[in-house]
Amino acid sequence: MRELIEKLFARHLANDKLDIQSDAATFKIPVATDELLITTDGYTVDPLEFPGGTIGSLAVYGTVNDLAVSGAEPLYMTLTAFIEEGLEISVLDRVLNSMANACRECNIAVVAGDTKVLKRGQGGGIYFSTTGVGFRKTVSNLGLKQIKTGDLILLSGTAGDHGTAVMLAREQFGLSGTLHSDAASVLPITRILMASPGLAFMRDPTRGGIATVMHEIAQACNKTVRLLESSIPVHDQVKAVSEILGYDPLFMANEGRVVAVVDPEHANQSLSALHAGGYPDAAIIGRIEDGRKHVILETTIGGERLLEQLEDDPLPRIC
Amino acid sequence: MRELIEKLFARHLANDKLDIQSDAATFKIPVATDELLITTDGYTVDPLEFPGGTIGSLAVYGTVNDLAVSGAEPLYMTLTAFIEEGLEISVLDRVLNSMANACRECNIAVVAGDTKVLKRGQGGGIYFSTTGVGFRKTVSNLGLKQIKTGDLILLSGTAGDHGTAVMLAREQFGLSGTLHSDAASVLPITRILMASPGLAFMRDPTRGGIATVMHEIAQACNKTVRLLESSIPVHDQVKAVSEILGYDPLFMANEGRVVAVVDPEHANQSLSALHAGGYPDAAIIGRIEDGRKHVILETTIGGERLLEQLEDDPLPRIC
Repeated sequence: MRELIEKLFARHLANDKLDIQSDAATFKIPVATDELLITTDGYTVDPLEFPGGTIGSLAVYGTVNDLAVSGAEPLYMTLTAFIEEGLEISVLDRVLNSMANACRECNIAVVAGDTKVLKRGQGGGIYFSTTGVGFRKTVSNLGLKQIKTGDLILLSGTAGDHGTAVMLAREQFGLSGTLHSDAASVLPITRILMASPGLAFMRDPTRGGIATVMHEIAQACNKTVRLLESSIPVHDQVKAVSEILGYDPLFMANEGRVVAVVDPEHANQSLSALHAGGYPDAAIIGRIEDGRKHVILETTIGGERLLEQLEDDPLPRIC
Repeated sequence: MRELIEKLFARHLANDKLDIQSDAATFKIPVATDELLITTDGYTVDPLEFPGGTIGSLAVYGTVNDLAVSGAEPLYMTLTAFIEEGLEISVLDRVLNSMANACRECNIAVVAGDTKVLKRGQGGGIYFSTTGVGFRKTVSNLGLKQIKTGDLILLSGTAGDHGTAVMLAREQFGLSGTLHSDAASVLPITRILMASPGLAFMRDPTRGGIATVMHEIAQACNKTVRLLESSIPVHDQVKAVSEILGYDPLFMANEGRVVAVVDPEHANQSLSALHAGGYPDAAIIGRIEDGRKHVILETTIGGERLLEQLEDDPLPRIC
């Protein structure tokens, strides 16, 4: 089984930097690079394949997106795969194929890898861990510390698609639908935002959703985040499923969205650039205010409520 | 549970590069660096704690050692932890403590991390994945391609300690002993070997043991590897356990040993340097010969036998 697995990885992910006989890969960085960045993530999504992606494409996009929202361009990644005994090889083949396609799309190469086989009953089919290395062309000033009172909050697309699509794919609720995960590279989005003036901060709202990023902002900045519910784009299907099951789309995972904080003079320019760049659902969803460090939602019916912080994962193995 | 876990990781592994609020960490490299190296590995050892180490120290040493045998010095690492629900927090605390101690010993900092909680019954307590980044001060010529006929093979210490110690720690065989895993940083060893002339190749013989590295050499060089059984250092306990259970120490995992290939004019100089440097068990265990690409063992009783290649892991979750 080990040999079969390793051949499959080598076939799908082969590139001139990946030498499976080496303990470590050498890698080069652009000469003019001012800053190197590194990020790591684990992936445990269940099911392994879902409408709009697989754990393979998700791992690549997740890695690329963490670099992208840091203002970086991806260069290389490493991959550790934990494979449970008894996994169908055809599933692994499809997962690696979608991973390879995502690598090509994002122009990122797997330069080092490892596979470990887990005993049946000691894994969840496939777990991946990736580390991504990227670079910023110039030292940027992005970060939570750049956020000021009055700044506006942009969201690049609809909220909660990934979490809802994966939940539906589990079929445990007896619901189904045509909804797809938003899993995708956000590099085109971050490039647009970085080319526009006034950008203070970017983050991809994955586990815990938009609401969790808002809480991170409120905590780190010691300010109030005010969201306008009617301005937050949400697919009708996501709304419907959330109502039936009692979930809130603002807490559902996204895997291809960006939350950006932009100064108020330039937020409309950034928004127009996103609309023109192929992101028609992008919207200004809220603003930063002086006040206690909490998150207020102005509801569609005109009221106000505090958005609580998540105590724990609402949905384990969603990403 | 998530919050508890993340606090525990932050407490043990805190350093000035680790910002848990960032998607990606910036990292710096020495100005005079010619080559950057990157390596990745997964760790699934069972039990999580064993005589001589834990999965935490093992993950650090494994990362450092892959860089070390590539002729590099470690700089940074990333860590993904998959934690199974129900794991005792006191176990995680001890594992992270031993990990932190190993990081300090090896002067390597965890700059980015992620934790994922696995459902009970979908994990093995703890799985780790690490990626290490290091640098070589000068471009070195180490590699399988540098190996020539007549070169001698050095082993830095006794064979099979880690695999045997972990097996004994499982207590499934009704055996026990005082044997410790050899899990350790091999940086002091690789530094000694690199300071000596004639070095062609280094590798740490982990999963699959010494024999598997010998097969990699034979295959890559298209030559015969000849080992002299009587010259291979093996602990008496490892010998005894192997005889009882029918294992071969040459196939057992090591986590603190180096196999080095050195030209015949300089091999004794390298050996003396290892002896003087605190590695009294280091020995010349074989040589590279022209011939078919296989591995011959000259046995203690004067015969010869072919060492087969491992078909599959002899002992799952040994590292």
